[in-house]
Amino acid sequence: MAQNIFYAQSGGVTAVINATACGVIESARKSKKLGKVLAGKNGIIGALKEELIDTSLESKRDIAALRHTPSGAFGSCRYKLKSLSENKAEYQRLIDVFQAHDIGYFFYNGGGDSQDTANKVSQLSLQMGHPICCIGIPKTVDNDLPMTDTCPGFGSVAKYVAVSTMEAGLDVASMAESSTKIFVLEVMGRHAGWIAAASGLAKDNPSAPPHIILFPEVAFDKVKFLARVKQTVNRVGYCVVVASEGAQYAGGRFLADAGAKDAFGHTQLGGVAPALVEMIKGAHGYKCHWSVADYLQRAARHIASATDVAQAYAVGEAAVQFALEGKNAVMPVIKRKKTKRYGWEIGEAPLSRVANVEKKMPKSFITKDGFGITGKARDYLEPLISGEDYPPYKNGLPQYVRLKNKLVRKQLPTFVPS
Amino acid sequence: MAQNIFYAQSGGVTAVINATACGVIESARKSKKLGKVLAGKNGIIGALKEELIDTSLESKRDIAALRHTPSGAFGSCRYKLKSLSENKAEYQRLIDVFQAHDIGYFFYNGGGDSQDTANKVSQLSLQMGHPICCIGIPKTVDNDLPMTDTCPGFGSVAKYVAVSTMEAGLDVASMAESSTKIFVLEVMGRHAGWIAAASGLAKDNPSAPPHIILFPEVAFDKVKFLARVKQTVNRVGYCVVVASEGAQYAGGRFLADAGAKDAFGHTQLGGVAPALVEMIKGAHGYKCHWSVADYLQRAARHIASATDVAQAYAVGEAAVQFALEGKNAVMPVIKRKKTKRYGWEIGEAPLSRVANVEKKMPKSFITKDGFGITGKARDYLEPLISGEDYPPYKNGLPQYVRLKNKLVRKQLPTFVPS
Repeated sequence: MAQNIFYAQSGGVTAVINATACGVIESARKSKKLGKVLAGKNGIIGALKEELIDTSLESKRDIAALRHTPSGAFGSCRYKLKSLSENKAEYQRLIDVFQAHDIGYFFYNGGGDSQDTANKVSQLSLQMGHPICCIGIPKTVDNDLPMTDTCPGFGSVAKYVAVSTMEAGLDVASMAESSTKIFVLEVMGRHAGWIAAASGLAKDNPSAPPHIILFPEVAFDKVKFLARVKQTVNRVGYCVVVASEGAQYAGGRFLADAGAKDAFGHTQLGGVAPALVEMIKGAHGYKCHWSVADYLQRAARHIASATDVAQAYAVGEAAVQFALEGKNAVMPVIKRKKTKRYGWEIGEAPLSRVANVEKKMPKSFITKDGFGITGKARDYLEPLISGEDYPPYKNGLPQYVRLKNKLVRKQLPTFVPS
Repeated sequence: MAQNIFYAQSGGVTAVINATACGVIESARKSKKLGKVLAGKNGIIGALKEELIDTSLESKRDIAALRHTPSGAFGSCRYKLKSLSENKAEYQRLIDVFQAHDIGYFFYNGGGDSQDTANKVSQLSLQMGHPICCIGIPKTVDNDLPMTDTCPGFGSVAKYVAVSTMEAGLDVASMAESSTKIFVLEVMGRHAGWIAAASGLAKDNPSAPPHIILFPEVAFDKVKFLARVKQTVNRVGYCVVVASEGAQYAGGRFLADAGAKDAFGHTQLGGVAPALVEMIKGAHGYKCHWSVADYLQRAARHIASATDVAQAYAVGEAAVQFALEGKNAVMPVIKRKKTKRYGWEIGEAPLSRVANVEKKMPKSFITKDGFGITGKARDYLEPLISGEDYPPYKNGLPQYVRLKNKLVRKQLPTFVPS
């Protein structure tokens, strides 16, 4: 009998994670060998609470609209399962819920932590005699998953950041003579500078912004930074800085540590831009402006990369294909073709090699002075932001879909996650 | 003989002020009664320094591309001429430069301060026996000029803010169960809440974001605000706040006063969003994210309103038409037609009635609780963000033009502005 698929979105959402959901659901609907796609309400928490959304009740049109709708249509969560030894009950509960709802496939759409969970569930389900086919589906704006050329979600945030840097750069350039000389844009990227790097695509000549990029991979040197700001203002009249939220001093201390930690124990960051502006004002007295893009950047479906949307859809489609082929504990990846003109195809990677590995920017992508990107980085990044894929508009606003999200009837007693 | 036009961009630039420049230059090129359009390098400072850009050296194609290029193509400035009694020399210098370059028309593209300057130049040139036809051309993202239904530049920032609020709102909604419950977006608007109000267009049902809008027109009440945040989280699970940079307490103290002042003596603001987040964290302990859009919002040509672009072009075109008709000390305005379906046409207003008047949000546009917009506001705002007008793209980035900006030969001795 055709078993159901459990699909869950995990971690920070992106402009295109719903395009992946669209790929999963549209592909699964085409196959008679597969049952329903049941989506976790708020990700894996939905499985633990047995809150499963019956996507078969959504219209074809609404599912198609997921392709152009940002954020997590079923809800996502920051919730990491504890290790097996610490909380086996949670894993047992997942398997129980999967059994109760005839779920034979677990599709986990997320970053490194999620791939680790999917891998554990796969192993445990075998041990427990209810083998579940576990497919990880890559998603992260941070672009820090290994084994894949890029991560769905990254291309769109990269495009947003490159376009925004170009636009704000023109703004500062036109005001600098008598007013603002410095603009600092803070972007996401906790441990890897991929997003900040994308701003470098806006630099179409040696005088164009961004003039300084701050990567988490390069230890921040205040003296060198302030000197470069001044040099740049003297040379071109103004200076645009793009800073990763994870920019840090040599000892690992973040430029802006907000003090709070999230459910994964990661430090919650924010405020690098105002911190840099204070430094610059103090040292040079320039008039400064700053911006913190935060959620705006990862939710910006209105300026999504067409390449990213296509890849996000394709990994969803591939997950279904892998399931039909009986694969397990694997993740579809994006493989860059070795052609001169950019091309890509879907490949696969074992979850064991993906889980808990963080891919940082290679040294060869960062200029020797630590403040910019190399031609090699540009060659890598440029195709990823290529193409526009605008959502439909009505009355001036994008027509993003909200699903009905009806839950299937519960079969099990209530479970209280610890 | 055909006299030249002096055109200058003034104050903070916008996504569409170059569309106005495009309207001016394309229209002037069509008339044999007009000479060249000479643009001030960095606005009025260019006139004082006799740094005049000869736009006749720019190709037809590059001038056409101004229509889709954000920011000030000739440079803008924050520089207010002192009063006549304080510094008559500056006005004298302007007239001298205009005479030396056979300039019979002064087109000043800016906000209220600029319209005041244009008006003074008109009066003084008459007194000095070298009458200059002075046309003010409206521009300001703040939408605070009187006599015109809207100000070119506003519709596009309004669209950016409405789209961004909708997108970030979906993001928070999908994360709220286990992670971020609060998102605060800080937008421009020093004394008038028009930009913040535009975020209200994203609210397509009573539970949708934004849940709280903070206007400069409504005194900030911390207790009431924090109570509403909590109510909202209890009711819908999360809370999206959009705050004007000019949000202020009853006494007029800004929520975030950065301490600095600009050339016009205005306080330079920033940091309302982090200030609000501190309050919310302190009172309720919710996980919060925040964003400061700053220049990103006013430079965002990639998501410009088609209505705004058309109006920005039209006021430039109208300035030339007014000049040809011999009008003086007037400003083209946008008049909303009294039709059911939105329509607009160009009207005119005397500069004397425009200068130094700030149009705030009418009370009837703000809900009684002070936290939202009314249906009346929505009816006013919605047409202004209507339509998309995408720039052309290449390799994933907008193709914005950079002009050659060649200066005409100086005729006069150097002048040092005091």
